Amino acid sequence: MIAAKPFDFPYDGNLEAQKTALIVIDLQEDFLSTTGYFARQGYDPAPLRAILPAVNRLIAACREAGVQIIHTRQGYRGDLADMTPYEKWRRKRSGLEGTTALLRSSPGFQIVPELDVRPEDVIVDKTCNGAFTYTDFEHVLRAQGITHLLFSGCTTDVCVHTTLREACDRNFQCLTISDACASGDQYAHEAALHMVTVENGIFGALTDTAAVLEGLKKLGPSAK
Amino acid sequence: MIAAKPFDFPYDGNLEAQKTALIVIDLQEDFLSTTGYFARQGYDPAPLRAILPAVNRLIAACREAGVQIIHTRQGYRGDLADMTPYEKWRRKRSGLEGTTALLRSSPGFQIVPELDVRPEDVIVDKTCNGAFTYTDFEHVLRAQGITHLLFSGCTTDVCVHTTLREACDRNFQCLTISDACASGDQYAHEAALHMVTVENGIFGALTDTAAVLEGLKKLGPSAK
Amino acid sequence: MIAAKPFDFPYDGNLEAQKTALIVIDLQEDFLSTTGYFARQGYDPAPLRAILPAVNRLIAACREAGVQIIHTRQGYRGDLADMTPYEKWRRKRSGLEGTTALLRSSPGFQIVPELDVRPEDVIVDKTCNGAFTYTDFEHVLRAQGITHLLFSGCTTDVCVHTTLREACDRNFQCLTISDACASGDQYAHEAALHMVTVENGIFGALTDTAAVLEGLKKLGPSAK
Amino acid sequence: MIAAKPFDFPYDGNLEAQKTALIVIDLQEDFLSTTGYFARQGYDPAPLRAILPAVNRLIAACREAGVQIIHTRQGYRGDLADMTPYEKWRRKRSGLEGTTALLRSSPGFQIVPELDVRPEDVIVDKTCNGAFTYTDFEHVLRAQGITHLLFSGCTTDVCVHTTLREACDRNFQCLTISDACASGDQYAHEAALHMVTVENGIFGALTDTAAVLEGLKKLGPSAK
Repeated sequence: MIAAKPFDFPYDGNLEAQKTALIVIDLQEDFLSTTGYFARQGYDPAPLRAILPAVNRLIAACREAGVQIIHTRQGYRGDLADMTPYEKWRRKRSGLEGTTALLRSSPGFQIVPELDVRPEDVIVDKTCNGAFTYTDFEHVLRAQGITHLLFSGCTTDVCVHTTLREACDRNFQCLTISDACASGDQYAHEAALHMVTVENGIFGALTDTAAVLEGLKKLGPSAK
Repeated sequence: MIAAKPFDFPYDGNLEAQKTALIVIDLQEDFLSTTGYFARQGYDPAPLRAILPAVNRLIAACREAGVQIIHTRQGYRGDLADMTPYEKWRRKRSGLEGTTALLRSSPGFQIVPELDVRPEDVIVDKTCNGAFTYTDFEHVLRAQGITHLLFSGCTTDVCVHTTLREACDRNFQCLTISDACASGDQYAHEAALHMVTVENGIFGALTDTAAVLEGLKKLGPSAK
Repeated sequence: MIAAKPFDFPYDGNLEAQKTALIVIDLQEDFLSTTGYFARQGYDPAPLRAILPAVNRLIAACREAGVQIIHTRQGYRGDLADMTPYEKWRRKRSGLEGTTALLRSSPGFQIVPELDVRPEDVIVDKTCNGAFTYTDFEHVLRAQGITHLLFSGCTTDVCVHTTLREACDRNFQCLTISDACASGDQYAHEAALHMVTVENGIFGALTDTAAVLEGLKKLGPSAK
Repeated sequence: MIAAKPFDFPYDGNLEAQKTALIVIDLQEDFLSTTGYFARQGYDPAPLRAILPAVNRLIAACREAGVQIIHTRQGYRGDLADMTPYEKWRRKRSGLEGTTALLRSSPGFQIVPELDVRPEDVIVDKTCNGAFTYTDFEHVLRAQGITHLLFSGCTTDVCVHTTLREACDRNFQCLTISDACASGDQYAHEAALHMVTVENGIFGALTDTAAVLEGLKKLGPSAK
């Protein structure tokens, strides 16, 4: 059980490591580096870099407990087959035309080296903001019997929230970890965290890294 | 063309009535009445009622121009086959156990009579916050060749935003109409509108009712 | 455990009533009556009617064991919002223009009265051949914790097989009941049953009504 | 226009290269080589190899006309994250345990070198039989404005037919090319082709390579 608001997670008290996954959204160079997509859009990536220690602590605790780690990466296919004329227009308008921003074939697509990624982690590549849309994310979760998701990553208001909303609609039990999520827009970040809790937890529960670490410790080490 | 931020809608200037739909999200008794689900959750439905005149003006203008009107309704199946143990627990926790809140079989499921609904409108019933999930909403849009969506309804931060995010990920061109959307939580409402425009319009464009009416007027009456 | 080919069902021997559903596909007037859609297409509905006793025996045994019954119904929305120009053309070509064939608003859409349908059964309406596409079928199955599906209904080669294929791809455990499925095209019916078993059971296992009844009997009556 | 049964393709006579794609299903070593997955399952890959000249002729004609080529490849993720206990059991039962059959990380996953694959082709990797399920196939088709699909590849009764059925349910216009599809089971292959045409073309139209080449020639070379 993990202390959370508006209710502890999971609601029935049955936290099981093998049914739980830590979702780490889009902690890629394109969002965190000072020369990537996000910085080129005019955002300061500093708040995104600031969560890395918390996310790494969560990853370590999840590995110890036997909780699956799943990273997502955002980017267009290398062949650009999934980029629409509208998206090309938006890239041009944002001064990204001719750059490799958000292309899977570019270095900016890689997860930042500061993050503890290992071969036993699952990586899901996506073009959309929502990790469930046009990917095998749900397929992997169902295949592994995963029903409980812990959310971290960036940005809180865009890709984290879209994926969180999709997960809730598919009846996954969801917990958002406030200080393990970040955005370049502090107002949007805080509002996105607030939205989790409206209507008595419409998008599940909200907690922080310390509470997750405390809850995972009680599970004990993985028998695996 | 409809004046909007951060860019006019649609981006290429080609507004076509028969490819456009006005989406009216969940303007049901359960959200707008003083005795429905939303009021029981502790929210004041007054801001939701306040948008009805604007939405009716939009509906009238869309009918005139030949733009399809699509209403959504939120609610569990009459047989409760889609309600999980978690959702039953949440209902109990919110004091909704034994009530008919959000059940398709109840009067609260109906669209409020003040709204101009006609037989030629399409109605999509959904259990999820997102109208694309586990419904025929996308099927209807694609069948009719609709590619451009104008968003109105409630609540801005939950069902409007979830559906908007799903629509963007499926490459529909999206316009959110600020004063034709509402929430019981003013902070969440305003933040949700702001989020549309981050990253230079990550969820499309944002405008108001007057601008939509102006843009539709330029289209002229429907030839249909 | 139910005796089946190329392997008994389910593969691990753990048949649990509350995780299992009997899927009854499209046993509607439009397919089974002598004046419905199917007969107008030139097919003899007699083979479809012939399975009704077997399906009713399965339904009775499933009720006794506590296995959920889920019926599907095929038909276009009453407002025709999901009918494409191509489908209108096909209807005209088949002499169905102006008829109510396959419309949800028509009597032909109803399940035949000979079938034992009860209020506690779930009914899923669909426009597509596959029951998973643009419906809440998967939502209901997941919400109820159903992972094992027993297939019956019509037609074997079209709607049963499309839904079966969708179910296998979503990792449901699937059993097709040969003499509880039927088609107006005997060659297509037999070939569809054969296809279940290619590649050592690519679409799960194949059995008959007697074996299902035998397997359900061993479960004992539902404790519910 | 391409001559086909039970009606010419497309139904309205408007064949447009830029709205059309040639879908080439799973012509991989695992299916076509004498040591791959399919041969290990006891099937003779000779009929699959036999269609390669026809598929290459189609590819050449499509390139000339400006029709997009899309290949699919079947296989589990390299990390096996999408393989269920049931699938592991099925592999063991088929003597595939410990082999690299159908793994994306293995040489058997590659498209056979005899096939004319070029960098401008799109490749979609899938775990399911249906290319639409848990992949970005539909995303790519919609992004490129592709509405008409020409089907080739293997096996006719499993992956071609599952993808064809999904495409029809999503209202793509579909044409199956009989002598550019193959299966290791001749009865299943022929029955699958027959099934396309039941109910006056329930899964679209059926033709052969010569008719497609003739139809594409009339389009003239691509202006691109």
